[in-house]
Amino acid sequence: MNIKPLGERVLVEPVKEEEAVKGGIIIPDSAKEKPQEGKVIAVGTGKIDENGKAVPFNVKKGDIVLMPKYGGTEVKVDGKEYQIMREDDILAIIG
Amino acid sequence: MNIKPLGERVLVEPVKEEEAVKGGIIIPDSAKEKPQEGKVIAVGTGKIDENGKAVPFNVKKGDIVLMPKYGGTEVKVDGKEYQIMREDDILAIIG
Amino acid sequence: MNIKPLGERVLVEPVKEEEAVKGGIIIPDSAKEKPQEGKVIAVGTGKIDENGKAVPFNVKKGDIVLMPKYGGTEVKVDGKEYQIMREDDILAIIG
Amino acid sequence: MNIKPLGERVLVEPVKEEEAVKGGIIIPDSAKEKPQEGKVIAVGTGKIDENGKAVPFNVKKGDIVLMPKYGGTEVKVDGKEYQIMREDDILAIIG
Amino acid sequence: MNIKPLGERVLVEPVKEEEAVKGGIIIPDSAKEKPQEGKVIAVGTGKIDENGKAVPFNVKKGDIVLMPKYGGTEVKVDGKEYQIMREDDILAIIG
Amino acid sequence: MNIKPLGERVLVEPVKEEEAVKGGIIIPDSAKEKPQEGKVIAVGTGKIDENGKAVPFNVKKGDIVLMPKYGGTEVKVDGKEYQIMREDDILAIIG
Amino acid sequence: MNIKPLGERVLVEPVKEEEAVKGGIIIPDSAKEKPQEGKVIAVGTGKIDENGKAVPFNVKKGDIVLMPKYGGTEVKVDGKEYQIMREDDILAIIG
Repeated sequence: MNIKPLGERVLVEPVKEEEAVKGGIIIPDSAKEKPQEGKVIAVGTGKIDENGKAVPFNVKKGDIVLMPKYGGTEVKVDGKEYQIMREDDILAIIG
Repeated sequence: MNIKPLGERVLVEPVKEEEAVKGGIIIPDSAKEKPQEGKVIAVGTGKIDENGKAVPFNVKKGDIVLMPKYGGTEVKVDGKEYQIMREDDILAIIG
Repeated sequence: MNIKPLGERVLVEPVKEEEAVKGGIIIPDSAKEKPQEGKVIAVGTGKIDENGKAVPFNVKKGDIVLMPKYGGTEVKVDGKEYQIMREDDILAIIG
Repeated sequence: MNIKPLGERVLVEPVKEEEAVKGGIIIPDSAKEKPQEGKVIAVGTGKIDENGKAVPFNVKKGDIVLMPKYGGTEVKVDGKEYQIMREDDILAIIG
Repeated sequence: MNIKPLGERVLVEPVKEEEAVKGGIIIPDSAKEKPQEGKVIAVGTGKIDENGKAVPFNVKKGDIVLMPKYGGTEVKVDGKEYQIMREDDILAIIG
Repeated sequence: MNIKPLGERVLVEPVKEEEAVKGGIIIPDSAKEKPQEGKVIAVGTGKIDENGKAVPFNVKKGDIVLMPKYGGTEVKVDGKEYQIMREDDILAIIG
Repeated sequence: MNIKPLGERVLVEPVKEEEAVKGGIIIPDSAKEKPQEGKVIAVGTGKIDENGKAVPFNVKKGDIVLMPKYGGTEVKVDGKEYQIMREDDILAIIG
């Protein structure tokens, strides 16, 4: 089942919290929502700036990223959970 | 009965939830509204960017898409239910 | 009595609900306001984009359109009720 | 006493409701504020678009217009009541 | 004591209400704040449009203007009360 | 200890209220926050307009300015209290 | 573990409050959140202005900066706490 995010959106598979610890990123239990780790599965059909000019994505398929906990929309495909979110909302590339 | 969405809007026929499962997309019952599947019936009269330049649609007639549950306006035509929404609000093309 | 809407506004005569059914469009009684059918009576003095460039209207006099129930301002002229609204708020051209 | 509205503002003298009826415009007593009729007394020092380019007014001195009830600021000059409002808020030219 | 308003701001000395009546402008006691008369004492260091281009002021030193009651910031200099406000908030030049 | 404000920010040292009176500026105790006097200590790394073009500061080191009471962020350096604020929020240059 | 902030974000390591005092910056316990000191660990993939043009960062790796207490998102890497924030939210470079 192929999912092509639309526009500047990105499809990310959240990394389970226990696995995340191996990667060294534990997010402190601060008042604000803990950001979570995830793997980029697919980038969108394309980002355009305010002048309609195409802008390249900063992330690519396979990158491990740090994203806000509730930044995207949850979807489940073939039993796996994913998040669809706008690239601007992704915090960092880690690894 | 022909419906031509205006501007950057798109006419989508929501796919019934049971049919959607065959397609592999079940949307977890998270706190947020479950996105739903739908089929693109017609695209609008045209998208323009901030400089008034025409911008092509990302979706086309027949695409199966993933959209937020209450992203559009419901209309019923000849007994069938449709949603009219802005293309920017569509999450992904699937299939 | 002539009414010339200003700027990007459009004058629309709402079609009575019973007549609308003949046209095949019944709008489900969903939680959100049911959109309504209407006939375009006059288009405004002109639409301009963010750069001040003139942009053509998508609708023209006589078109049957679908519009949000409370999208415009109600006015009564010679006993007939009309709505004045911005073209961007019109959902689709039907017929 | 001369009043020169500033920028894209317009000075309008509201037409008394009884007189308005002669003109054929009665505004239904809907939930929303009834728009009112008025006569343009003076246009502002000038409208400019987002690029600083001068844009002509759509209305001119003497036009009879339709405007939202509380769209402007009320002022009284030599005993007469006027409204000062932005041209964009005027709904239509009538007559 | 010299005061040079910054950017597109203007320094205005409110005209006492009794004096204002001589000038013919009485502002009806409507629900909204009564606009008030004032004399322009100094214009700002300069207005620029969205493209950074300098734009001339519409008002000049000595003009009598009409301004919203609480549109600016009150300051007292050498015992006299003034308002500092953005030129866009001034309603009209009168006199 | 050197502080270089970032972007269009400015570092200002508020003038004590008693000293301010010598300068002739007493701000009436109106409902709104009394603006306060201050001395510009340092201007930021640079102002840019919406097109990314550099724009000169209106204020310079040493200017006495009038600023809204709670317009900036308070910081204490070597025992002295300062405010860091955006130049746009400064009301006027006085003196 | 390498962290590359995305877009115009910056990775900052907050300086402990006691260490901050050595640096001379104590932030008064005012009603508003006390800004805090931090050291820039990494700058983002790039800042672009409204026209899509690349804009250089004002801060660089190693700078000591002043930032709002809750301006960013907290993350912990290999036991160390960091903040990821947009460069625009950083108040000043100090040292």
